[in-house]
Amino acid sequence: MPGSVASPRLRLADDNRAAMGAEAAGDAEDPRSHWFNAFGAVRRETERRAALLSAEDQVVQSMPDASPTKWHRAHVTWFFEQFLLRPHDKNYRAFDERFAYLYNSYYVSAGPRQARPRRGLITRPSADEVTEYRRHVDTAVLRLIETADNLAELAPIIEIGLHHEQQHQELLLTDILHAFSLNETHPAYDPHWQWPQPTRANRAGARSAAPLAGIHTIGHGGNGFCFDNEQPAHEVMVQPVRLASALVTNGEWLEFMAEGGYTIPRLWLSDGWGTVEAEAWQAPGYWSNVDGAWFSMTLGGLSPIDPSQPVCHISYYEADAFARWAGKHLPSEAEWEVAVQNERLADAFGIVWQWTRSAYAPYPGYQAAPGALGEYNGKFMVNQIVLRGSSFATPDGHARATYRNFFYPSARWQFTGLRLAEYQG
Amino acid sequence: MPGSVASPRLRLADDNRAAMGAEAAGDAEDPRSHWFNAFGAVRRETERRAALLSAEDQVVQSMPDASPTKWHRAHVTWFFEQFLLRPHDKNYRAFDERFAYLYNSYYVSAGPRQARPRRGLITRPSADEVTEYRRHVDTAVLRLIETADNLAELAPIIEIGLHHEQQHQELLLTDILHAFSLNETHPAYDPHWQWPQPTRANRAGARSAAPLAGIHTIGHGGNGFCFDNEQPAHEVMVQPVRLASALVTNGEWLEFMAEGGYTIPRLWLSDGWGTVEAEAWQAPGYWSNVDGAWFSMTLGGLSPIDPSQPVCHISYYEADAFARWAGKHLPSEAEWEVAVQNERLADAFGIVWQWTRSAYAPYPGYQAAPGALGEYNGKFMVNQIVLRGSSFATPDGHARATYRNFFYPSARWQFTGLRLAEYQG
Amino acid sequence: MPGSVASPRLRLADDNRAAMGAEAAGDAEDPRSHWFNAFGAVRRETERRAALLSAEDQVVQSMPDASPTKWHRAHVTWFFEQFLLRPHDKNYRAFDERFAYLYNSYYVSAGPRQARPRRGLITRPSADEVTEYRRHVDTAVLRLIETADNLAELAPIIEIGLHHEQQHQELLLTDILHAFSLNETHPAYDPHWQWPQPTRANRAGARSAAPLAGIHTIGHGGNGFCFDNEQPAHEVMVQPVRLASALVTNGEWLEFMAEGGYTIPRLWLSDGWGTVEAEAWQAPGYWSNVDGAWFSMTLGGLSPIDPSQPVCHISYYEADAFARWAGKHLPSEAEWEVAVQNERLADAFGIVWQWTRSAYAPYPGYQAAPGALGEYNGKFMVNQIVLRGSSFATPDGHARATYRNFFYPSARWQFTGLRLAEYQG
Amino acid sequence: MPGSVASPRLRLADDNRAAMGAEAAGDAEDPRSHWFNAFGAVRRETERRAALLSAEDQVVQSMPDASPTKWHRAHVTWFFEQFLLRPHDKNYRAFDERFAYLYNSYYVSAGPRQARPRRGLITRPSADEVTEYRRHVDTAVLRLIETADNLAELAPIIEIGLHHEQQHQELLLTDILHAFSLNETHPAYDPHWQWPQPTRANRAGARSAAPLAGIHTIGHGGNGFCFDNEQPAHEVMVQPVRLASALVTNGEWLEFMAEGGYTIPRLWLSDGWGTVEAEAWQAPGYWSNVDGAWFSMTLGGLSPIDPSQPVCHISYYEADAFARWAGKHLPSEAEWEVAVQNERLADAFGIVWQWTRSAYAPYPGYQAAPGALGEYNGKFMVNQIVLRGSSFATPDGHARATYRNFFYPSARWQFTGLRLAEYQG
Repeated sequence: MPGSVASPRLRLADDNRAAMGAEAAGDAEDPRSHWFNAFGAVRRETERRAALLSAEDQVVQSMPDASPTKWHRAHVTWFFEQFLLRPHDKNYRAFDERFAYLYNSYYVSAGPRQARPRRGLITRPSADEVTEYRRHVDTAVLRLIETADNLAELAPIIEIGLHHEQQHQELLLTDILHAFSLNETHPAYDPHWQWPQPTRANRAGARSAAPLAGIHTIGHGGNGFCFDNEQPAHEVMVQPVRLASALVTNGEWLEFMAEGGYTIPRLWLSDGWGTVEAEAWQAPGYWSNVDGAWFSMTLGGLSPIDPSQPVCHISYYEADAFARWAGKHLPSEAEWEVAVQNERLADAFGIVWQWTRSAYAPYPGYQAAPGALGEYNGKFMVNQIVLRGSSFATPDGHARATYRNFFYPSARWQFTGLRLAEYQG
Repeated sequence: MPGSVASPRLRLADDNRAAMGAEAAGDAEDPRSHWFNAFGAVRRETERRAALLSAEDQVVQSMPDASPTKWHRAHVTWFFEQFLLRPHDKNYRAFDERFAYLYNSYYVSAGPRQARPRRGLITRPSADEVTEYRRHVDTAVLRLIETADNLAELAPIIEIGLHHEQQHQELLLTDILHAFSLNETHPAYDPHWQWPQPTRANRAGARSAAPLAGIHTIGHGGNGFCFDNEQPAHEVMVQPVRLASALVTNGEWLEFMAEGGYTIPRLWLSDGWGTVEAEAWQAPGYWSNVDGAWFSMTLGGLSPIDPSQPVCHISYYEADAFARWAGKHLPSEAEWEVAVQNERLADAFGIVWQWTRSAYAPYPGYQAAPGALGEYNGKFMVNQIVLRGSSFATPDGHARATYRNFFYPSARWQFTGLRLAEYQG
Repeated sequence: MPGSVASPRLRLADDNRAAMGAEAAGDAEDPRSHWFNAFGAVRRETERRAALLSAEDQVVQSMPDASPTKWHRAHVTWFFEQFLLRPHDKNYRAFDERFAYLYNSYYVSAGPRQARPRRGLITRPSADEVTEYRRHVDTAVLRLIETADNLAELAPIIEIGLHHEQQHQELLLTDILHAFSLNETHPAYDPHWQWPQPTRANRAGARSAAPLAGIHTIGHGGNGFCFDNEQPAHEVMVQPVRLASALVTNGEWLEFMAEGGYTIPRLWLSDGWGTVEAEAWQAPGYWSNVDGAWFSMTLGGLSPIDPSQPVCHISYYEADAFARWAGKHLPSEAEWEVAVQNERLADAFGIVWQWTRSAYAPYPGYQAAPGALGEYNGKFMVNQIVLRGSSFATPDGHARATYRNFFYPSARWQFTGLRLAEYQG
Repeated sequence: MPGSVASPRLRLADDNRAAMGAEAAGDAEDPRSHWFNAFGAVRRETERRAALLSAEDQVVQSMPDASPTKWHRAHVTWFFEQFLLRPHDKNYRAFDERFAYLYNSYYVSAGPRQARPRRGLITRPSADEVTEYRRHVDTAVLRLIETADNLAELAPIIEIGLHHEQQHQELLLTDILHAFSLNETHPAYDPHWQWPQPTRANRAGARSAAPLAGIHTIGHGGNGFCFDNEQPAHEVMVQPVRLASALVTNGEWLEFMAEGGYTIPRLWLSDGWGTVEAEAWQAPGYWSNVDGAWFSMTLGGLSPIDPSQPVCHISYYEADAFARWAGKHLPSEAEWEVAVQNERLADAFGIVWQWTRSAYAPYPGYQAAPGALGEYNGKFMVNQIVLRGSSFATPDGHARATYRNFFYPSARWQFTGLRLAEYQG
């Protein structure tokens, strides 16, 4: 049920305890305990995900859009140092002043920084030093939570820092998979990893949810955490449209390929076809054909394509071409959100992100947060496409029905799939 | 009044006669006379615009996005040959079979074609041969109009061919201006050319139109010609928003520049700031500073900036940054269209195109036209931004309230400006 | 006989009269008549070569390395204006001060200039205006020749200006051929043009000249004009080597292709193989395969490959690979020059330039000329390879045994072929 | 004395024992002991150099021209596996068949391989696995040396494998320095590292060696190992030229900079000036100006420029410009070799490599070795410039007077300097 997935609670892999969010405020916990526990839980999850990787694995950057594991671990730590400890803890002593340069991502207001495409050259500080850096900051944050007079004022900063770190937990996995995909020996992040099982609806095929139409409210208007790009809640007019209850599967994608999907220009957006030709795409990202059989590079290593599984690692261009081939459309983000809010969709969360046909843009009346944190979302609102839902790699408690993920239309290294929509004549 | 501007009549520069469109069907003219006259009027306008240019001027291509004048003249002619004469006139003999290769633009379904960035290498056929080609096709089309049994069936093809040619009439001017802008001797397309005079409202400053809110219908639902991307008409929910009645002026832009508009990263979208840095933008397109005074390259040659005129040759990135600096927004295309339909805006047409904040996307339920003509619009519906209105260079009768123009957010060589919008709290 | 070809006399196509050079000094002519005639003859030859091209043909630039015909015509004129008239004729009034910007090539010392890749955008001044410019400068130069008190001082400037213009006469042809090669209609520069007939030796096959060995003098040491890069004359040690008397033919090249020449990496220099792959080379430049038969784009249009003709439009990389395939070498420039000086080689001049294996470098003790003219040769002495001889397109009187032509090893748009050499064990 | 430096003996850092080479054959050692010891000594030196680097340091690749330390360690090991063990040891079992793909460099004949620019992505196999791989191959090679019946036949393969590994020992240092130079924290490879002390001659200034002239023999003609590019020995004619006995110093380079060396186009080759502008060069590689003082990134970290030290990390373009500024030339490689053979030059070896003005080209009659090893040198003989001597990072025993090092003229990450030459009028 979307509602429970969209809950701002964190169900973390290591302790499976509610740890963070708005409902938590209603828990028996007092706020100080709440944030103390939430902070520890999120921080541990990052380390749990990195623990399977060697120091060597953690240093590489396989393309400018991907970052090293070590960088992710340090950057999310810098975020707390920069926005929480430096301004709000007079006793805080920075672990190493040079880290501000190395681990700032794109916060122009926070000063100069390592050029993005060169993050993979930073062999020193070592992974061990980054572990020390994390401990140094953890200690300081936990002490601040325990002792601050103004915890209510600090809580929103802690909260956004934790959600920020959860975003990087997913990126940590997409980025190491990209690096491993370029290694001919096909290393496994986790040899026991397997594709998540979709619900039965998924297997049964594309049964469509009942049509939506009329005025609905989308965007985040209630309690609990959200990013600024989910606001303000506002009314939209939805045309009569029916969304498929199931995700598109590998089997359907193989059919698209068999019918020449990657070779027929009229199925594609013009920029999409240009990308197909320039990149010589013939199948989804990470797919390779070995002696006539299709395999995909996964977090478990090279693994055979299962036709019953949802397709993954497709770009927006591919999703759009598939929809055209199928005589359907991608849903808009408003259509998707309304359908989820009405509990009509299976596998909306926890399998693969779903491309919508909506360009990433500000909601009417959107205001970016003030200061450097205002750079978090607003400045990316052009040239990107909204994805909705969440993937198997999204941390528990991070997904919700109003969440707006976004990537460039050519991106394929994320855990991205699609569901179709159909307008009613 | 938008209504009259949006009329599908053509008021052409050379004869100022109504020549084309749906209302014409109600004219005293019979359809055969109507299309005969309309065809002649549009075709003459193209030649009138080209007549100021030498054969040498007509051959160059200054960037992949711009085309040579000679190419425009031949391509719009090929369009009639390819979609009207070849399939519908059994007696038609092609002028030269090689022209199909040279003058197809992007219609993949219509066969292979000259690579776009190499259009400027085609010194032969000469400009004179293209003139002959135009006469050859004109003669055949006019004879077909006079003699066809199935004129009602052919009329939609003639009509889209004429609207297509009108689009290239504007591009012919934007493209030659780009070429001349790269010539240090600053050639004038027409030494007598001058900026169009905006209305009084424009001079009086940014008086805002009254706020819009509620459910409105946008898109083209009535009679008269429209492109497929204007359909289907559909309802949208508009938030309370107030649009400025006047266009932003050069004087306001100089203020933005004086306050460091081009040097403050937080005013810009991330991709926009990347472009500012890569292209070293410091002012609108075609502006140059000569001994402390700003000039702009225009169709009349290099001319001093007039602070009271609307700003022109700005990209979407600049329009968006300006709006942020001004504490406002760009209107969405729906907001713009609703405001125009309610006659609230001055200078909506005939001065400069106005960037909206809407990504170019299909309307809900959009269906591309079948066949090669289906490539006209639909395949460009990603990565581009909608502009509304029209410019001084748009041919009479080509503009209307539902018209959707679109360019990449970095484009500056079109006649593009902006008007601001403000949400009501 | 090389000696006569290398003579600095000009035998021009239009009047076939000796017009220029050192021997001329011994003619019945006085120096004033000599330079008056030589100047007229060279200037007329440029116009004769351009006369077959329309104004449209003359404006295009097909790649950064090639220049428009109109630019060649104006640039060689600017050379006389810049280096002869401005400094030495007090009464000279510049035709148009803006031309110094437009038509300077690479003389940094002579001020800023039009960016090289943008020479093809200059539609104005027109070809007709350039004709006027040429007349204006011609008149001034001829008057200066007739009236100057210090003609002996001016003669070297006139002389280098004429040799400079002759170099551009060849480039005018190579560059328009490149532009026409990119036009699918295969325009002919001159429909009557034909490949030059090689000597009988060429047809008989690769009879080798007798081996050279020992100390020889190369470089220009005598009277008559030479460029600074041919000096100083100096002794070199030549190893025992035998040069083929004939040029490599198309027939031999087809054999190389049939044996997989373009597909076997070990035949190629590493940078050469990289170019083969990046450019997808499968045959010499301008060759295309039409229904199984090879054709080449020529100044006469598309024409079938004649196996008995010398191969043309090959890069150094290809020449080197061919030599390796043949189990031979390319000669060094010293070996070539010594062989020619000893009258051992057929078709050294007037057919195709011949790649040597010598990198273009200063001779020991080389000194560049002072001032801006010192930029003529010296600054290009890296990354390029020496070619020797001359081609059919080289103007009469411009070739000589010591002449050093040079291009980048990947260049194919010049009239370039090869002859082989073999070391004696 | 050059002779002793050029000796093929190895004086290794860890045991300082003669270990390898032709003279060794005259040692008390029998050949089996000789190769056993030489192999061990060279292999240990590689590990000694890598031992200061963490596994993280060893994985990164900072540019396509540089390789990771781990790759160097594995590649030189693959070389023995590929060319010695696989063809000559029937009992040899490959450590891991996938390593042939990962660690082949550019031997096309030896099969497909990891794309060069992606060597830095190979986090697995780990540095520890590469250590195992080295042990596996070491054991097999040592056993083969001890037991082979045909050691005389195998010795040349072992020998070239050891010289090959020595080349990579220097590259290992240049490449890690490049990676560290891009890290703002300026890591030190070895905190105790210092610039080598040049001889007194160096400090005393540019005392020139007496002029050379006449016929000399260059190239390797005697006993002992050499690469194929040093052969055949042959006679050359040397013009009267005087070589500076000392290397150009940082102090002299600062003078060049102070006089605008990096800002005056006429001092530069055309391609060199293009590089200065594109790369914004203002000083030698790795130099940075901190508060008005110049520092250089070194193997010991960031260290102040010492004016008395030889300048290092300059490209050929810079060396050539400096020579022109100084009114001198760079020596040709023949001039350098003859001067060294006559014991006239100080600091020819062991400080910095010295750019010559000779393009890297085959000696007359050069024959590449047969088979895959023929790809070692010959295919790089275009577009590169010869350097002579050796640097402080060159392993003992690897340098000799006939040795030809070569790099592209823009390369600055090697330990490269210059000495000047002057022609005698």
